Amino acid sequence: MKKVGVAILGLGVVGGGTYKILTEHRDFYKKNHGVDITVESVLELNKQRAVNLGVQENKICSNIAEICSNPDIDIVVEVIGGLEPAKSFVLAALNSGKSVVTSNKELYCKYSHELEKAAKKNKVGLFYEATCVGGVPVIRALLDNLQGNKITSIMGIINGTTNYILSKMSDKGASYEEVLKEAQLLGYAEANPTNDVEGYDSTYKLSILSSLSFHTKVPYTEIYREGITKINIADIKYAKQFGYALKLLALGKDGENGIEVRVHPALIKSTHPLAGVNDSYNAVYIAGDSVENVMLYGRGAGALPTGSAIVGDIIYCATHPNHSYSTFKNTENADPSTKFVKNFESEYYIRLSAKDKAGVLSKITSLLGKHSISVSQVVQDKGETEGQAPLIMITHETKEHNIEKAVADINATGIAEVNSVLRVVS
Amino acid sequence: MKKVGVAILGLGVVGGGTYKILTEHRDFYKKNHGVDITVESVLELNKQRAVNLGVQENKICSNIAEICSNPDIDIVVEVIGGLEPAKSFVLAALNSGKSVVTSNKELYCKYSHELEKAAKKNKVGLFYEATCVGGVPVIRALLDNLQGNKITSIMGIINGTTNYILSKMSDKGASYEEVLKEAQLLGYAEANPTNDVEGYDSTYKLSILSSLSFHTKVPYTEIYREGITKINIADIKYAKQFGYALKLLALGKDGENGIEVRVHPALIKSTHPLAGVNDSYNAVYIAGDSVENVMLYGRGAGALPTGSAIVGDIIYCATHPNHSYSTFKNTENADPSTKFVKNFESEYYIRLSAKDKAGVLSKITSLLGKHSISVSQVVQDKGETEGQAPLIMITHETKEHNIEKAVADINATGIAEVNSVLRVVS
Repeated sequence: MKKVGVAILGLGVVGGGTYKILTEHRDFYKKNHGVDITVESVLELNKQRAVNLGVQENKICSNIAEICSNPDIDIVVEVIGGLEPAKSFVLAALNSGKSVVTSNKELYCKYSHELEKAAKKNKVGLFYEATCVGGVPVIRALLDNLQGNKITSIMGIINGTTNYILSKMSDKGASYEEVLKEAQLLGYAEANPTNDVEGYDSTYKLSILSSLSFHTKVPYTEIYREGITKINIADIKYAKQFGYALKLLALGKDGENGIEVRVHPALIKSTHPLAGVNDSYNAVYIAGDSVENVMLYGRGAGALPTGSAIVGDIIYCATHPNHSYSTFKNTENADPSTKFVKNFESEYYIRLSAKDKAGVLSKITSLLGKHSISVSQVVQDKGETEGQAPLIMITHETKEHNIEKAVADINATGIAEVNSVLRVVS
Repeated sequence: MKKVGVAILGLGVVGGGTYKILTEHRDFYKKNHGVDITVESVLELNKQRAVNLGVQENKICSNIAEICSNPDIDIVVEVIGGLEPAKSFVLAALNSGKSVVTSNKELYCKYSHELEKAAKKNKVGLFYEATCVGGVPVIRALLDNLQGNKITSIMGIINGTTNYILSKMSDKGASYEEVLKEAQLLGYAEANPTNDVEGYDSTYKLSILSSLSFHTKVPYTEIYREGITKINIADIKYAKQFGYALKLLALGKDGENGIEVRVHPALIKSTHPLAGVNDSYNAVYIAGDSVENVMLYGRGAGALPTGSAIVGDIIYCATHPNHSYSTFKNTENADPSTKFVKNFESEYYIRLSAKDKAGVLSKITSLLGKHSISVSQVVQDKGETEGQAPLIMITHETKEHNIEKAVADINATGIAEVNSVLRVVS
């Protein structure tokens, strides 16, 4: 039987999960996949953590060189996260002839060109299913199932922390700050949650998914990014009234005018399959010219779901002798011929506090009209402050720049203040 | 650039879709997948149909031998459907050294052991993503993404026709017969709809999916099967009242007592992701010991969505020189060591017409109790016939055989008649 040795770099949440899956399923893989996969080494400075997981002392090492020179190791799993030392370790592994499986979205997003170059040069595999959306099989679906399609759009809820927070805000009517605290206590959000709540994590994943979908490099720096920290519970409440769910959405489109990529909170019609994706579940909704629509749904994070994606890559690597690489020119920067749409079109949700007197609504809609914005729905709520009333509008499709100018004009009137502007996605 | 020649056997709905995708995307595949895929031949007796699609006359043939002996053909796509001549043609293609891509669920379900044997012998590929759930990437997900998991259950809405019919019955409050007629007019149901509405199509797919999921042959003959022809609109109405959707469900479980496989109408909690899968959309919900839950959703049928799966397999075959085969002993019959659970456990929905007089409910619940069945919810509706009232119950979990005996006992009393028994799946 084919023997395959694995090294795991980092025994954090995902590394620990991967170790557990591999060791507990060894016989299962021998029986069903004809391959004997053993963890030959772990790189972990916290020795006790490794011992607690059941790793034999002689398999714990603190030095990447030991792993690179170990002939019993075929596949190196990088689950350290962040850029360094992860990047140097992955390059060292590739350059010593080991295939690499990584869950590191930031590293892969920023340096896939370098990593792939090293993998190709050394004729080894580079696998990254676990970089995007945990256990949900989206990378391989794009590479090996939907590759006959021209993908026209990819829309996803691809960050577990923010979806957990927005779902709980919606369920409980609680504020962002309250729910964030609870999420931190439960381990769903980190002590410093910036990477998740400001949307950085989603831009890394969207960069990877868009590059694969649209067959051209989509650098994360081209992605419009807006997080969820300013989401007010009032917006979630009004969104519901209008028949929408509020989600942090990652959206990529490939259209006539170029590629449009953005991560921001958005109102999604409650009948859309993505609207029902709650808590720490994630999903990606892909439209292709043949397949119409496909949605892939599951746990977007966690030790075992992400471990499932890593182990899937390990077994794939162990049972497929030839390796494939990107189906686009994997360079550092976008191809000069790729156009990115910045002034994108959308419907908008606008919440204002307006002076509660006659003529205000007409003044505001006339200002919107001046910027080619027409209103499809409007609700005037009862205000909590005397003389002030919340005014909530949904517009027809218009351009981002029109909205920016209209908001500035409305705020300048003194009769109303724009509290919130959110995009509506259909 | 690598050149790959394809032959398509049968230019029906899916064959036509496949032809269209391949010809329209030729340059796209050259650019992005580095392979020049051309349709070198079609086997179609209706010459006019081929000509209408734009096939050159010299590429239309009526004889499988011509295709088998054509050195320009590398991959044969079988989209004829049914057992013969599809089976002989596929075997002839494999035995002449061509890889085969098929969408034929009945053929693959019943003869995968023979086809795979021929593919292995000739060192060619055998691909069948399109056999199950149209464009939804479920086969490759099981083989190459979730293969590190022990799959514990797979639950799916895997037939487009029946899901369309049940969705429309639910939306419109119309009868089965009415909606079936409409579905036939729209081309969603065939003139003879037996294969779909009696659940045969779903058992073929469930056999394939369960064999892959549970790493052992699950013959379709082991699958309990019940169609949707007896579904009364009243059951859909009451199911909604109790908070459930009524779906034709395909269910496979691998548990302590063995494998349980069944296709039947079932009540699913309206909060379950499968409950929102409507019209001709399909979905598969998979539970694995690491990944937790994954759902794959999309068009379960149609020329282009199924064509997308076929073309995905063609490109995969064209770009991966080594072929993989089943990850279980692919024999005609189940392995003698595999146990199948027949007397399965479930919650049940029971609708009765009961005499509208005191003591009837107590008599019925006491009869149920005699067979170890306890009731979790009960609703007594107003009857349309004087002296008769519909009585609707949901039971706690019990065994199938208990229900059968209890129903016989209730019918024997003369005070009530059981109109409908459906399983409830959570």
